[in-house]
Amino acid sequence: MGVSELRRYPGVHHDGSEIYVPERSPRLGATVRVYVRVAADAGVDAVWARTTFDAEPRFTPAEPVPVSGDDRWFEVPLLLRNPVIRYRFLLAGPAGYRWLTAAGVVAHDVPDDTDFRMVCDDPAPDWARDAVVYLIFPDRFARSSAAAGRSLPDWALPRDWDDPVTGAGPDRPREVFGGDLDGISERLDHIAALGADSICLTPIFTSPSNHRYCAASFDEIDPLLGGEAALTRLAEAVHRRGWRLLGDLTTNHTGDQHPWFREARDGRHPDLYYFTDDAPHGYETWVHVKRMPKLNWTSPELRRRMTDGPESVVRRWIRAGLDGWRLDVANSTGRCMRDDTTHEVMRQIRAAMLAERPDALLIGENAHDATRDVDQGGWHGTMNYAGFTRPVWTWLATRPSAFLGVPTGIPRLSAGAMLATMTAFAARMSWPSRVTSWSLLDSHDTPRFRTLVGGDRRLIEVGVGLMVTLPGTPMIFAGDEIGLDGAYAEDARRPMPWHRADRWDQQIFATYRALVALRRRSAALGDGGLRTLHVTDDMVVFCRENKDQRLLVLAARAPATGPVVVPAAAHAVNLYGGAPDVGADGSLPTDGPTFQVWHLPSEDVP
Amino acid sequence: MGVSELRRYPGVHHDGSEIYVPERSPRLGATVRVYVRVAADAGVDAVWARTTFDAEPRFTPAEPVPVSGDDRWFEVPLLLRNPVIRYRFLLAGPAGYRWLTAAGVVAHDVPDDTDFRMVCDDPAPDWARDAVVYLIFPDRFARSSAAAGRSLPDWALPRDWDDPVTGAGPDRPREVFGGDLDGISERLDHIAALGADSICLTPIFTSPSNHRYCAASFDEIDPLLGGEAALTRLAEAVHRRGWRLLGDLTTNHTGDQHPWFREARDGRHPDLYYFTDDAPHGYETWVHVKRMPKLNWTSPELRRRMTDGPESVVRRWIRAGLDGWRLDVANSTGRCMRDDTTHEVMRQIRAAMLAERPDALLIGENAHDATRDVDQGGWHGTMNYAGFTRPVWTWLATRPSAFLGVPTGIPRLSAGAMLATMTAFAARMSWPSRVTSWSLLDSHDTPRFRTLVGGDRRLIEVGVGLMVTLPGTPMIFAGDEIGLDGAYAEDARRPMPWHRADRWDQQIFATYRALVALRRRSAALGDGGLRTLHVTDDMVVFCRENKDQRLLVLAARAPATGPVVVPAAAHAVNLYGGAPDVGADGSLPTDGPTFQVWHLPSEDVP
Repeated sequence: MGVSELRRYPGVHHDGSEIYVPERSPRLGATVRVYVRVAADAGVDAVWARTTFDAEPRFTPAEPVPVSGDDRWFEVPLLLRNPVIRYRFLLAGPAGYRWLTAAGVVAHDVPDDTDFRMVCDDPAPDWARDAVVYLIFPDRFARSSAAAGRSLPDWALPRDWDDPVTGAGPDRPREVFGGDLDGISERLDHIAALGADSICLTPIFTSPSNHRYCAASFDEIDPLLGGEAALTRLAEAVHRRGWRLLGDLTTNHTGDQHPWFREARDGRHPDLYYFTDDAPHGYETWVHVKRMPKLNWTSPELRRRMTDGPESVVRRWIRAGLDGWRLDVANSTGRCMRDDTTHEVMRQIRAAMLAERPDALLIGENAHDATRDVDQGGWHGTMNYAGFTRPVWTWLATRPSAFLGVPTGIPRLSAGAMLATMTAFAARMSWPSRVTSWSLLDSHDTPRFRTLVGGDRRLIEVGVGLMVTLPGTPMIFAGDEIGLDGAYAEDARRPMPWHRADRWDQQIFATYRALVALRRRSAALGDGGLRTLHVTDDMVVFCRENKDQRLLVLAARAPATGPVVVPAAAHAVNLYGGAPDVGADGSLPTDGPTFQVWHLPSEDVP
Repeated sequence: MGVSELRRYPGVHHDGSEIYVPERSPRLGATVRVYVRVAADAGVDAVWARTTFDAEPRFTPAEPVPVSGDDRWFEVPLLLRNPVIRYRFLLAGPAGYRWLTAAGVVAHDVPDDTDFRMVCDDPAPDWARDAVVYLIFPDRFARSSAAAGRSLPDWALPRDWDDPVTGAGPDRPREVFGGDLDGISERLDHIAALGADSICLTPIFTSPSNHRYCAASFDEIDPLLGGEAALTRLAEAVHRRGWRLLGDLTTNHTGDQHPWFREARDGRHPDLYYFTDDAPHGYETWVHVKRMPKLNWTSPELRRRMTDGPESVVRRWIRAGLDGWRLDVANSTGRCMRDDTTHEVMRQIRAAMLAERPDALLIGENAHDATRDVDQGGWHGTMNYAGFTRPVWTWLATRPSAFLGVPTGIPRLSAGAMLATMTAFAARMSWPSRVTSWSLLDSHDTPRFRTLVGGDRRLIEVGVGLMVTLPGTPMIFAGDEIGLDGAYAEDARRPMPWHRADRWDQQIFATYRALVALRRRSAALGDGGLRTLHVTDDMVVFCRENKDQRLLVLAARAPATGPVVVPAAAHAVNLYGGAPDVGADGSLPTDGPTFQVWHLPSEDVP
């Protein structure tokens, strides 16, 4: 009753990957051809594409394409009349029509927010699509030899590298373990061993806290981290390996010790922030944190400083060696009461960044719902907490955990529910935004995934397996790969135990290395299409495929309750996990937890 | 598999009606209290509201409110931090959490586009919420005595009132039957007998076509209709009855004989339109109609003429007697290639209109998907083709029909599918936008509903019943109430057969009168909340309720296949349809097609 009738039929499929959308740089005004796959038994006689023309619907008949194999293929030209084109397919058959949207097949009318999207925009840089990102919280990653000699500022409480992290209270942001940028430069071999090739640093500007999210400067790299010279050395070392280095910019707020805030409070540029008697501290802040006054992006002076010209914050540090930015609290940036300049601001930031480095990357942090903020000409992608992290937790976590403010624990749900959530978010962004968004199991702002699964190595393998095989850019929080624990965000910010072999889980490290390597050598895992073939509560089987490669993935959190037969899996050859090759009948293994990948025979596509 | 798990539980409910949102004029920065109903057996231990604060999620615990009765009620304060607040409820229980959004209850995470919305904005005028709108196509409604003496322009082909309409070909827009504004003034008693109280006229500006959607002027009421003097007489007559009169403005385009277009083509104000070699006719048009050049709303000169100052088009005709505007092709207005100024333009139009008449109404035509265009400070509501007309057709139509460009027939679907479509659209707009949108069974742009149901009077009664009892403003296309037919849009534009009693279906007229009267005397049908209580393929049972009145509605397109027992219906007293009062067990009639309304016993609410 009142049930939304969205269903997925594996044989009726379209997504934004190259098989279905060969044009990878769609341009406004162009006509591009797109393809749709229709199973022979889908009850479909004819196919139309519905798109819009200045918001008026328009139907274009699709023509069958001769392709060998069981499925039928249809081709249809789409006029890219507007910068963001939404389209869906009308499937006509004896039982009436059904729609194919990015949320699946539905037999009744639905709004167009889950329509496929094509964005006439410069795509994200090629390197980003194939990247594996390694996220580093600099104070906790590695100390260089120079670290010991540094004098600490007054606010800092020095800690030994092996000390436990203080989880709460006023000392929490004050304790300094002394990791620095040269420490990272010295440990690149470890990152190479893992197989990552892009490093994202949490903030490195001078700031009176260990996390540095309350910047006291956008002009100075914290001397505690080695200053700008150390950044230069790190960037050079990273680039020598052909890798990428990303910074973390707090565009939503600064710290209250930032000179801009002092200037503003002194009345010289009050427009840089929001001063108001209505706010508890006399000015707007990030949530209610007094130390984090909120920037006012309606201020032309703020935009001048942040984005205009070569000396702007955004451009200067790209020139100094960064390959792009992760933007902190990007969802709130530019939003305050009645102001909402977020999309415009993000376009400015991207343009500024690209003026300095044409292949730079912009990732917006959004722990809530990024679907309205991608595909707007700003962010290339988001940190995909909503569309990856959280649904994976609901399927795999065995320990109770809160999530970023949710006042109850994460529920334990079926694989169907996990996929429904992933689809609900993915259906509201373009394919390029989806594959450029970061798939992360955790971060410095969450519990560690290992802790959520109670250290179960098989469940960790399943989680990492999903991270490297579902569409999205894998992002690994430093320490996950060696099995660090962390029950909540601060607890997760434990120093890397370089010299404590007993704290390394070499088996987990081997799993990470093998799965990252699989990802790196499999182009289909980067930009290949995704079709779900089989789902039970405890298992999901899907394929990723481009024109050259077809991979079959099985993820199970528990043993199957009966035989698993997926005809489309026939003759698959095992690549990862050690299961047997699949026979002609498509029988798959029933043990679990397990994670398996096979190579599928090639298939004729248009 | 991959199924969206949205479900409706009648006992877990919230909507934007007064029981749940007592504050009817929410203001930015205020904190308002909202209420949620939770059935005792819903498995809910605790409730939170999740809302956003500059796009960051925020949870607020709800407190139980002591209310007698079986259901539990919770109350929660919401801070209206931003102009449009989205909120949902987190329902915690032993099985984990579920979300209550405007799309229903879901057990996994979903994006916030179906969250409830509260818009900090001036509400639509009170009269609009309780209005019953009568849509008139002036050339076909009624001739006054003056009509016979008028000389016709060269383009016109005179027709006798009883002539059949020419359905296609070049003569179609040229044939003039000669209805005029004084003809309408003379027939207000008929509209009074029907019970409508708001008249919406399709365009009345001078234009070289009978439909007048290709305006040759925005300064002159067509002399064929009696000119401005006749409009003044009509407006006075309408207002003397305490009724309202709405105009129809083509904001997307003019005709190619409009002096603005000549001016633009002559090079004086080329910015008023879009001249481009890329367009087939050398300029952009509505779809590809050469006679309808598209207006360019990025032009300051266009905005000046349309909305700025007392002599602007929008204001002048409001002052001349109109109580608001229906905007033609409002979805495309302001959208052209890379330009998208629609929301800003609509805000300007509304502001101009309200400057002239503070209780004026703005309705945007959108035959596609209005969900992104309401709640933006412009339209008060839309013509709800997507969220009402089309789903009703899928449930009730028995004759094949296309719909506004859809290349296949409308499928025949279950009541569940009808409600799923209605909910999908309604969940993406605020409650005030929903109840101010027009529920129409057809219009001058579609087949007549009577034709779609093959003249079946019982199905017509069910359709009209849904129109007056579901949230939304009933809009009746003149002639429906006496049973006119029309197989497609032009065919539906038949003249009213005032002097041909044989063409009047008095039984249908009686049904319309009774149902409109029911609507007019039942405040709960205007702004009351909606809860669905029972759905099968062929039947839907729901209630509409405010603090003073509770109504139970049963609509069936066919007999039930078994007993229908709805405990919440116990002791209901029949108001419409003639079914017996409901006994203590909640047994409802099983015949069909039928449409029944009962009065429910009162209930304690917060």
